[in-house]
Amino acid sequence: MQVEIITIGDEILIGQIVDTNSAWMAQQLNMRGFSVKQISSVSDSEQHILNALSEAASRASIVLITGGLGPTKDDITKKTLCKYFNTHLIFNDEVYSDIERLFKDRGYQVSAVNRSQAELPANCMALRNAVGTAAGMWFNVDGVIYVSMPGVPYEMMHLMESSILPMLSQHFNAPHIIHHTLLTQGIGESILAEKIHDWEEALPEGIKLAYLPSVSAVRLRLSGSGEDKEKLTNEFDAQLLKLKALVGKYCYGENNDTLELVLGQLLGGQNKTLATAESCTGGQIASSMTKVPGCSNYFKGGVIAYSNEVKVNQLNVSQSDLDAYGAVSKPVVESMAKGVIKLLNVDYAIATSGVAGPDGGSVEKPVGTVWIAVASRTEVYAQQFLFGKHRERNIQAATLTALNLMRRMLQGTLDVADYVVK
Amino acid sequence: MQVEIITIGDEILIGQIVDTNSAWMAQQLNMRGFSVKQISSVSDSEQHILNALSEAASRASIVLITGGLGPTKDDITKKTLCKYFNTHLIFNDEVYSDIERLFKDRGYQVSAVNRSQAELPANCMALRNAVGTAAGMWFNVDGVIYVSMPGVPYEMMHLMESSILPMLSQHFNAPHIIHHTLLTQGIGESILAEKIHDWEEALPEGIKLAYLPSVSAVRLRLSGSGEDKEKLTNEFDAQLLKLKALVGKYCYGENNDTLELVLGQLLGGQNKTLATAESCTGGQIASSMTKVPGCSNYFKGGVIAYSNEVKVNQLNVSQSDLDAYGAVSKPVVESMAKGVIKLLNVDYAIATSGVAGPDGGSVEKPVGTVWIAVASRTEVYAQQFLFGKHRERNIQAATLTALNLMRRMLQGTLDVADYVVK
Repeated sequence: MQVEIITIGDEILIGQIVDTNSAWMAQQLNMRGFSVKQISSVSDSEQHILNALSEAASRASIVLITGGLGPTKDDITKKTLCKYFNTHLIFNDEVYSDIERLFKDRGYQVSAVNRSQAELPANCMALRNAVGTAAGMWFNVDGVIYVSMPGVPYEMMHLMESSILPMLSQHFNAPHIIHHTLLTQGIGESILAEKIHDWEEALPEGIKLAYLPSVSAVRLRLSGSGEDKEKLTNEFDAQLLKLKALVGKYCYGENNDTLELVLGQLLGGQNKTLATAESCTGGQIASSMTKVPGCSNYFKGGVIAYSNEVKVNQLNVSQSDLDAYGAVSKPVVESMAKGVIKLLNVDYAIATSGVAGPDGGSVEKPVGTVWIAVASRTEVYAQQFLFGKHRERNIQAATLTALNLMRRMLQGTLDVADYVVK
Repeated sequence: MQVEIITIGDEILIGQIVDTNSAWMAQQLNMRGFSVKQISSVSDSEQHILNALSEAASRASIVLITGGLGPTKDDITKKTLCKYFNTHLIFNDEVYSDIERLFKDRGYQVSAVNRSQAELPANCMALRNAVGTAAGMWFNVDGVIYVSMPGVPYEMMHLMESSILPMLSQHFNAPHIIHHTLLTQGIGESILAEKIHDWEEALPEGIKLAYLPSVSAVRLRLSGSGEDKEKLTNEFDAQLLKLKALVGKYCYGENNDTLELVLGQLLGGQNKTLATAESCTGGQIASSMTKVPGCSNYFKGGVIAYSNEVKVNQLNVSQSDLDAYGAVSKPVVESMAKGVIKLLNVDYAIATSGVAGPDGGSVEKPVGTVWIAVASRTEVYAQQFLFGKHRERNIQAATLTALNLMRRMLQGTLDVADYVVK
C-alpha cells in the first residue's frame, strides 16, 4: 500500500528545521508493510497545498499531512482541507474538552485563538491528542485516506502510535508484521556479515535482515511478514534465537536499549558501583552513564584526568610509567582504572587514554590510538584500539567501546588474552 | 527567485536516513536571496523522477537535484535526465581524469563501473567534484536551470559552495546579501525581543532580523540585501554595532562560535587553566570543553561528584552543609568549585548540583532546580536556576549556562548581586 507524506510549513523550506518527522514516519510505516512513494515539503500557501494534495492522492491511497495546525494566522491547513473537500469547519465538543483539560493542567484559561483549535472540517473523524492542543483528523474520501496531524514531533508520534498506525493496519487489512533489532558493538559490519552469512542465506521467505551501521555499532533488524500470525511468530522466534547465538557476546541489547541503560541494569542488578577515569573521552563516558534516570544508585562519579598532573596526583599513575611509556599506554590506563576504584571506593571502573586528534599523533601512536581499561577490585583488562582521524567520532567510538567492555566484564564474556589479575 | 529541491533515493523514503541535505541547501539558498518553493523526495524510479522534474520546472526557475549518481544499477538519475532532455550520455575526459586522480590517491585502479561515472548527458556543463567520483551537472533548458549533484552530504556541500551557489548568484544577477549572527545565552527570547524592540522597529528597508531559538540559547541573525554593495555594507555594519551594544553581556560569540570554543580562547589568551566539578551535569561540561582540539592547553580535568561521598571526600564539601542545606544548594556548589580549584591546582572552576529529573524533585527543589557556581582562586559566584522537567534538556541547559557564566567571569561581566569574595 502506497503512502505520500506532505509536510506543511515554511520552517522546513527556509532550512530552519530539519525534517526528522518524515524519516520517523517512513520507518514506522515500512515496519507495518506500507511504503512511502514521495515526501513533499510545501509552503503555508493555499494553492500550493491544494496542488500537493491532489498530486499525492493521484499516486497513493494514503496521504499523511503534518504541520500548519497551530492557532496562529500562518497555520492554514484546516481551512485549506475544507476547501479541498468542499466542506466547512464545525465545533467539536470532545476536542474542546481535551483543550480545556490541557490548559487547566497548566493553570491557564483557554484563549480565543486556542478555542478555534476545536473547530474541525465537518467530514473528518477527530483523532484525540492527549499531549497537545491540535487534534488529528482522519478523512476517507473517494477511496483515499487523508490524515492531518500537528508538526510538533512528539505530538505527531503520539497520534501515529496511539491511533493512526493501528487504524491504517486495520483499514487496509495489512499482513501481520514483526520486527526485532539486535544491537551489536565491537565487531565490524563485514565481519558480522561473514559470521552470519550461511544463516542469512537460509532465511525462509517472509523473513529478512537489515544492517543498520552507525559510529562503532551495527544494529541488525530482523523483519517478518505473513498472513498466519502464529506460524510467522514461531518461525520468527526460531530464527531470532539462531541469530542471537551467532552474534553472541557482541550483542549488548535489543530494540531501544542503549549501552548505558544495559550497563546500569547489570550494575543495579548486581548491587555494584561504577566510576570512570577519563582522559581522551573527556567526560563523555560519565555523561552517557548519567543520561539514565536513577543512575545515582550505581554511578558514584569519576575523575577527568586530562592532564598528566591529574593522572599522577589523583589516580596514583606513576610518573615513571608516564615517562617510559607515555600517557597513551597499557600501564597508564590500567593504573587509572585501579586508581579510581581505590579513590572513589567503587566495585568497577572504566579508564581511557588516547589520541583523539586532529593533532598529537605520532608514527608509533597515530591519531585514533586509544587504550581502554576496565577493572574490578581484583582484575584489570586493557586493550588498544585504533579508531579513525575524526576527533568527535574517535571520542564517540572510544566511549561505546569502553561501555561495552565493561558490560562484557560484568557478563563474564571478556576475552582473556590480555587479562591482568592483580 | 524560486527553487525546487528534488532528492532521489529510497534511503529517505524508507526512513533509513534523515534528509539533512535539503535543510542545509535551503539555508544557503535563502542566505543568497533564493527561496525554496518545494522539497520533494522521490524513489529511484524513472517515471517518478520524470514527473517530479516536470512538476518542479512548472513552478520554479531553478531545480536542484541530489542523489542517484553512484556507480551502481540503482542509480538512474543520469539516464533519466537524458530521457527528460531527449539527449544521450557522452564520455567526459576532464571528469575521467578527476576520477583517475581520486583512485590513484587511494592506491586503486579505476574500475569499469567507476569509469561509467565519467559519462554525462550531452547537454550539460560538468561541475568538477574534487572530493568524490560523481561530477555535478548544470543544465540550462527553456529558461530553467537544472543542477544534478551527488547525495553524499560533503560532496553536495562542496559542489554547492565551490560552483553552484556562485553560478546561480551570477546567472540570476542576485542582489548583494550579507548575514551576521550573534549568539546569546542566559536571556529568554521574549525578554531579548523587548530589549531590542525599538531598534528592530527602526531597521531600514533591506535589513531584517531573525530569532533562532534552541535549548537555553537564542541566535540573532541579521540579514541585509541591496544593489549597492558599499552602501549596504556601511548600513549593515552600523546596525550590527547597535545590536551588539543592546545585547551586551548576553552575547557570547558570532556566527559559528560555540561557548566551549570562546571559553577556550579566553582561557588560552589569559594563560589560565580550568577544571570542573560536576554533579547533575554528569560530565557534560567537561565533555563540551574537550570537544575543542588543543584544549589540553587550558583544561586540566575535573571531578564528577555524582554521589555525596565524592563531594565530601574529593572536593572537601562539608558534611554539615550537606545535612543542613542538601546537595542542591549554594554552600555545596560553592564548596565544590573551591574544592576542585585546590585539588587540581587550577585558576578557574565550574561546579553544578541540581535535580535533573525525572524523579528526585520536592516542593522546595522541584525537578529542574540547578545551582551553578563559577570560581577563580579568590572569588566565587553562585546562582540558582529553574529549568524544565525534561532530564536531557535540563543537563544541556545547565551545561550552556555554566559555560556562559564562566565566560562572563573571565570577561568581567558577571552580575555582582550574589558575589562572594573569599
